[in-house]
Amino acid sequence: MTALPLPDRSVDFGDGLFETLLLHRGNPLFLEMHFTRLGRGLEALAMPDCRPAAHQQVEQVLRTIDKARPWAVMRLSIIRGPGPRGYAPAQHQHPRILICVTPMDRDCTKMSPAATMSVATIRLAAQPALAQIKHMNRLEQVLAAQQAQVEQVDECFVLDQAEQLVSVIAGNVFLVRAGELLTPLLVDCGVAGTRRRLIIEKWAPAIGLQVREARLTLPDLQSAQEVFYSNSLQTVRPVARLGDQYWDNHDVCDALFRRYLEELS
Amino acid sequence: MTALPLPDRSVDFGDGLFETLLLHRGNPLFLEMHFTRLGRGLEALAMPDCRPAAHQQVEQVLRTIDKARPWAVMRLSIIRGPGPRGYAPAQHQHPRILICVTPMDRDCTKMSPAATMSVATIRLAAQPALAQIKHMNRLEQVLAAQQAQVEQVDECFVLDQAEQLVSVIAGNVFLVRAGELLTPLLVDCGVAGTRRRLIIEKWAPAIGLQVREARLTLPDLQSAQEVFYSNSLQTVRPVARLGDQYWDNHDVCDALFRRYLEELS
Repeated sequence: MTALPLPDRSVDFGDGLFETLLLHRGNPLFLEMHFTRLGRGLEALAMPDCRPAAHQQVEQVLRTIDKARPWAVMRLSIIRGPGPRGYAPAQHQHPRILICVTPMDRDCTKMSPAATMSVATIRLAAQPALAQIKHMNRLEQVLAAQQAQVEQVDECFVLDQAEQLVSVIAGNVFLVRAGELLTPLLVDCGVAGTRRRLIIEKWAPAIGLQVREARLTLPDLQSAQEVFYSNSLQTVRPVARLGDQYWDNHDVCDALFRRYLEELS
Repeated sequence: MTALPLPDRSVDFGDGLFETLLLHRGNPLFLEMHFTRLGRGLEALAMPDCRPAAHQQVEQVLRTIDKARPWAVMRLSIIRGPGPRGYAPAQHQHPRILICVTPMDRDCTKMSPAATMSVATIRLAAQPALAQIKHMNRLEQVLAAQQAQVEQVDECFVLDQAEQLVSVIAGNVFLVRAGELLTPLLVDCGVAGTRRRLIIEKWAPAIGLQVREARLTLPDLQSAQEVFYSNSLQTVRPVARLGDQYWDNHDVCDALFRRYLEELS
């Protein structure tokens, strides 16, 4: 779709969900895991379960993709669609499915260089009803990304209003301390990333580590031997610097990335 | 515009602002007040000040409107527009202006009948960076409006996570107690309504009342002699019932509505 018929509630209220899928030679990685999260989102927003139609449309788009091109990004959006004026959705909802594929120049078999970081000024609001799902109300992330642009850093750590570490702007955060791999509990905000789930359930155990979900703060980060973040496009990316603190140990991040590459081949 | 060219960041992230204007014989009521709030929103989201262009487009649309039709609603949206993939906006932003006019059958010189209410289950998240402005991240309101539909009430009172009264889903709330007119302070969430501002600055003083902005809770509501809410389409609307509590005194609401009608004529 190159134009969205108006009215649409995604425009009006950010009323929808999305997934960012990495395509490898036209093949979406961990597709079912993205669809599982979509399912939780559809339930949270009380939208009809249109995943079968979304699946079909994804397959249709994939058939048109040049499989020789090694990497691309697919944004899959499920939006509430048209409706009457006002906040209440139509009694009979007709969600729309939007798919947009963007080619990627980066070679995703190479880990991204270690990132420079700031701490986002904005503190994420606590909203358990919308936590973990990947909905389209993302102004907090937009504001934090503007800060990263201005400060010319690669990413920002994001805290909640109780000064607890939640994530980075576009990804989940992990730290290694005293041989333990830690990641923030996501109760009141943050997105439950697909790669976060893979690290917890599969990749960390495969390299002999258990992930502990915990309440973490900036001092925990500062006392960590290693810090990295995860998202669907970079898989895992080491953190190099926050202010005058440097991390040069990226062993766990390296090992997880190698584990991911094994799965890829 | 009947279709929005994609990509657009309003669809992707709810990255935009809107105003709901009541049109009386093709004339938008309190237009400058809506534009003042838009200005605060544009600043909060670090968007270019495209109000002059929005003004022009509003005037252009108004010229096409049948002035014989007494009432209509104009939704004016300023959205961030296209941009690269990811949360960060384009360095050179090109906001888009969307205007949608919907005819209204209701005679807006008659006050709406007193409303039946519930309390929304969802508690609004505290986000001072986005409080008061009318941005497009409105999933909380969508979820609350779904509840109102299911419970077949006209509106819901909405609380924040500290159980403080904030507003109704689509409007600001006022209560009368011991001769005092009270409305919630809007510090961490809620929208600063144009009619709320008119009541505070103009209409309440004109009927001999000063509005006190205060921290209020459900018990304050329950001990009130009169409760009403305000928004751009209904101006003020009395509240009749919440659960087994009834309010049959609507004197202040009536007087404010008469004051509004004087201004209209």
